[in-house]
Amino acid sequence: MSDDVRHRKPAENQNQLKVPQKDEIRPTSDESDMDMLLQDEERMEKLTKAIPQDKGSLGAFADSLLETLPPKWRNWVVRGVFTVIMISSFSFIVNRGATWLMALVFLIQFKCFQEIISIGLAVYRLYDFPWFRALSWYFLLTSNYFFFGESLIDYWGILLRKDNFLHFMVAYHRLISFALYCIGFVSFVLSLKKGYYMRQFSLFAWTHISLLLIVSQSFFIIQNIFQGLIWFLVPVAMIICCDVMSYMFGFFWGKTPLIKLSPKKTWEGFIGGAFSTVIFGILLSLFLYNRPFFVCPLQNYQIDNSNCTIPLSFQTQEYAVPKPFSFIYKVLRKDPVIHIFPFIFHSISMSLFASILGPFGGFFASGFKRAFKIKDFGDVIPGHGGLMDRFDCQLLMGTFVNVYISTFIRIPDATKLVTQILWLDPQEQIIAFNTLKEELIRNGLLHH
Amino acid sequence: MSDDVRHRKPAENQNQLKVPQKDEIRPTSDESDMDMLLQDEERMEKLTKAIPQDKGSLGAFADSLLETLPPKWRNWVVRGVFTVIMISSFSFIVNRGATWLMALVFLIQFKCFQEIISIGLAVYRLYDFPWFRALSWYFLLTSNYFFFGESLIDYWGILLRKDNFLHFMVAYHRLISFALYCIGFVSFVLSLKKGYYMRQFSLFAWTHISLLLIVSQSFFIIQNIFQGLIWFLVPVAMIICCDVMSYMFGFFWGKTPLIKLSPKKTWEGFIGGAFSTVIFGILLSLFLYNRPFFVCPLQNYQIDNSNCTIPLSFQTQEYAVPKPFSFIYKVLRKDPVIHIFPFIFHSISMSLFASILGPFGGFFASGFKRAFKIKDFGDVIPGHGGLMDRFDCQLLMGTFVNVYISTFIRIPDATKLVTQILWLDPQEQIIAFNTLKEELIRNGLLHH
Repeated sequence: MSDDVRHRKPAENQNQLKVPQKDEIRPTSDESDMDMLLQDEERMEKLTKAIPQDKGSLGAFADSLLETLPPKWRNWVVRGVFTVIMISSFSFIVNRGATWLMALVFLIQFKCFQEIISIGLAVYRLYDFPWFRALSWYFLLTSNYFFFGESLIDYWGILLRKDNFLHFMVAYHRLISFALYCIGFVSFVLSLKKGYYMRQFSLFAWTHISLLLIVSQSFFIIQNIFQGLIWFLVPVAMIICCDVMSYMFGFFWGKTPLIKLSPKKTWEGFIGGAFSTVIFGILLSLFLYNRPFFVCPLQNYQIDNSNCTIPLSFQTQEYAVPKPFSFIYKVLRKDPVIHIFPFIFHSISMSLFASILGPFGGFFASGFKRAFKIKDFGDVIPGHGGLMDRFDCQLLMGTFVNVYISTFIRIPDATKLVTQILWLDPQEQIIAFNTLKEELIRNGLLHH
Repeated sequence: MSDDVRHRKPAENQNQLKVPQKDEIRPTSDESDMDMLLQDEERMEKLTKAIPQDKGSLGAFADSLLETLPPKWRNWVVRGVFTVIMISSFSFIVNRGATWLMALVFLIQFKCFQEIISIGLAVYRLYDFPWFRALSWYFLLTSNYFFFGESLIDYWGILLRKDNFLHFMVAYHRLISFALYCIGFVSFVLSLKKGYYMRQFSLFAWTHISLLLIVSQSFFIIQNIFQGLIWFLVPVAMIICCDVMSYMFGFFWGKTPLIKLSPKKTWEGFIGGAFSTVIFGILLSLFLYNRPFFVCPLQNYQIDNSNCTIPLSFQTQEYAVPKPFSFIYKVLRKDPVIHIFPFIFHSISMSLFASILGPFGGFFASGFKRAFKIKDFGDVIPGHGGLMDRFDCQLLMGTFVNVYISTFIRIPDATKLVTQILWLDPQEQIIAFNTLKEELIRNGLLHH
């Protein structure tokens, strides 16, 4: 990009750089804009130099083995090895159940936040403000407290008797969270230091955007886990599959570039990835749909979900074959119906989203990295980069699944609403009961 | 602030400015940091020069009248006149009821958003990207659609029959909102232009922070209006009172500076403002508490709230006088009880919040303006500046009142929960009814 600018105006730019006219107020013409642009880019490169970058290195011994491979394959091997390592550790954790999974989500959340905040601290040169740095982490804790409190209240609220200490925490949860936030807000205002305003405000905004992105996302993901492990596992696996398969298709057959932002991505990879993901989603659903461990929601009262009544989405149902295809059944002298569980359709919706919109999370992250002149978000996973490099495509997915569930699956469940009614004053409970009774009688659902 | 820097290192800085060593990669030492700081400040001043600033001018005729006054008073008069104009137009709108008020909230929301986005566009020099500018407004509409949809569903949901077109909008509201957001997100990614990444990402973040600040805020405020006009009017009036009274106290008796960020604010103003606000809040509550127009919640089905059963908060109740004071009543041979309506206590909580935390909204805005080298957010109100200059202290207030109501007043109301149950499948409705019945019998609230 800086090449581009240099080619167009070589003389002026060099001149400008060497002798900026300090006292002359330059108009914001195209020329001075180009000048600023060049300055910005050079400066950014210096600023983010300190962010650790992936070197595709595995330590001296493994590196010497890799030397024997042609360079194009070398990166592929490192990447492949670590893909396998990640997938196996992930499978291990999934097998241990919901509690471990939630712990994993938290761990990833913290690490991603740390990666993003580090970039912000480098860009706005605020590494030397330890208190100010701590503030970002304070906001992370506060917003986690708020979000997870809100969701746990729904699930475990009814368990608490009114004399319990936790009842206080539940009843005043929003007020407590808001007070915690206000403390952070006031600390921010008091921490403002003359000459650093602009950078402190920028990092404040940076922190909030990261929270919005990461905390809300992991909140949605944990809510999905509550709905049944399958609602977590299938979407995550889809994104991984789409990532891996686009890479493979692109690697072997990629020719037509897809988007300027990510020059390595190709249409061949995109389409191959999408196709594989849909197939993969269907196969995975078929493999999982009759295992209670995966399909049972975590019930209100327990984390252990080994036996439950299988939710409707995973029970086989009869569907009429669409008109255009029904003649095949007539030829075969069969009833034009198919027996299948609805989750298959959910799986197809999710895989389409994963393979069409998921990559945009990746492009977004690519653009972000280019904006801040870094190649990777970090270096924790050799061959891959930072955690954020791996989770960029998961960005929108968790939210999509959450919205999908709340639209098509969890149309507010009876138990939760009854729980909330039982939280009211006794008087109000009776009013609610009577109103409900009247309405049900009026609608002919209750005969009394 | 730039003075400060210049005094400390005059020679080096000037030198650096005249001949930056382009090819030398400077370490991010304190010195180069100071250098960047100076560059940042000078550049920022140029960038935000275009933001319209208040000139305290009222047009030629009024200005010539003002000329006769001493300068210190001149600003005071302009400010005073426009305070009166604003308060009267506000009172007029309040008198017209909830619908007009909500329209006003929307209007203010749009104008505030426009003021903030204009600063962002100037800072990141993106005025020449009309499509990209439009994107910010698209996100404003989308998030309004989402937030207000969510709240209207609660209030009007039950009215809709299942065959109604609006029922579709309600049932798929989250999915539609998410799809709209995704369209914006994808457009953003596709709009990224080589060389402008950093600035485009910054404005993207800027837009989201503005939405968070402004849309969520006005959403909360509108929810408060639904709870009864008093929950909107009293907090807003408190902030105005606190603003005006701190200004007056500071103007006449201000001596001790309060915070470096806003050099004009004094401890005298702060304390005087707080004291006046508490008194004012109590008086205003006494004036309003028995008027149904102000205290009645907007009911589920109608905007007109002229008759309702007065909510408990506004009904006189008997409170025992706290021990230390009860002897006074004994001396006077009276029962040691007072008769008062609970809203008085709510009013005191709110006025304390308004006068202690409200000003931090103002400090925050001051810091923000200093960061971006502007004096005002705009020039729509002579003597005051932009709308954001007037609403800075309202920032946290709407959220506080919302949290306060949801904690102490609106502990989820029976009607709303019953409404939600009636939205379920008939089968689920029966299950809910039976579960509720069992629980009520078990808790001894129902004998059957």
